[in-house]
Amino acid sequence: MSVFIAFEGVDGAGKSTQLKLLFQYLNERGIEYIFTREPGGTPLAEEIRNLVLSPEYQDVSVVTEAFLFAAGRADHVQRVIRPALAEKKVVISDRYVDASLVYQGFAGGLPVEFVAQINDMATGSLKPHRTIVLDLPWSLAKERMGTDRDRIEQKAQWFHEQVREGYRELAEAEPRRIKLVDASGTPDEVQAQVRRLVDEILPRR
Amino acid sequence: MSVFIAFEGVDGAGKSTQLKLLFQYLNERGIEYIFTREPGGTPLAEEIRNLVLSPEYQDVSVVTEAFLFAAGRADHVQRVIRPALAEKKVVISDRYVDASLVYQGFAGGLPVEFVAQINDMATGSLKPHRTIVLDLPWSLAKERMGTDRDRIEQKAQWFHEQVREGYRELAEAEPRRIKLVDASGTPDEVQAQVRRLVDEILPRR
Repeated sequence: MSVFIAFEGVDGAGKSTQLKLLFQYLNERGIEYIFTREPGGTPLAEEIRNLVLSPEYQDVSVVTEAFLFAAGRADHVQRVIRPALAEKKVVISDRYVDASLVYQGFAGGLPVEFVAQINDMATGSLKPHRTIVLDLPWSLAKERMGTDRDRIEQKAQWFHEQVREGYRELAEAEPRRIKLVDASGTPDEVQAQVRRLVDEILPRR
Repeated sequence: MSVFIAFEGVDGAGKSTQLKLLFQYLNERGIEYIFTREPGGTPLAEEIRNLVLSPEYQDVSVVTEAFLFAAGRADHVQRVIRPALAEKKVVISDRYVDASLVYQGFAGGLPVEFVAQINDMATGSLKPHRTIVLDLPWSLAKERMGTDRDRIEQKAQWFHEQVREGYRELAEAEPRRIKLVDASGTPDEVQAQVRRLVDEILPRR
């Protein structure tokens, strides 16, 4: 099999819910998968995640942040994603490189090409077979977000719109890999789109 | 003034002693300076240092390590080195980019060009005006090293020789900036060479 799927999206778009529903589906179909997440996915990468999200380092520059995420991602790719793909597994990651392109690039102010370059180097240019982006306007995202917000989620509407626009541009540039999903419907409505996009790239049996 | 000096060298070459003697000299001459170090130099970079040197992450890959050092360095350059140089200060750093070129590149097995590229990106290509490299053969370095060795220092003779050779190659490639100092003499003998090299680039008064 060896399928690598990444989930992305603006904060508040319902990524966790959609992932949970997708896992139910894969379990019912008897498809084995491993689930992982970024920033994080390994003990070291989780520590890096904690550093980046810590209020103590709220004022860390976006360049530093981009390198920290790249470091965690390098560890994640080498220890988790590549070994799993080598064993012909389905790998589902909650965020991956496109999140850095969008959060540190489009929305963070770094040149997207700069972020792309360090991430190519960190991952050995490993790309997902499919990247599913949950797309949602700010008005709806705000309603859905809880109160337990981390630093990135506390940023305002402007940031949200930049992130959203960033994902849209990435999807336009790589329309076969990156698919936008309208996340404004009910969880089941959104999940139907997600499952169709996942089915498309899972091998037939 | 705005002078940036980096100190480098194989482990055990007596860098701390030489720095201490240099500070005495600068103080006597009434030259103000700020002293900083890598990996580290800012609270975040010190945390990154602790991660990289922690026994728990002994098996972290050299790619991940290179990105972590680059992240810490980006923070260090932006918060400490560039602001100090902008205020026309003398900045002395215990290690800088060349340490990564040597430890992750020449000795660590990454392509030196790869390490150079991420560090150019992390530092905005900021180079020291002078880099002083304490050079010492393994036989003498081993004798001088204490028992409180961190992970990098525990690596063996082969590694030491790679590091030494790496610094030598860098010095050959940039002979005006990078100066090798024979560290096999007494502390005072070595310091005499160090002071001469520092005097060369300090502005006359």
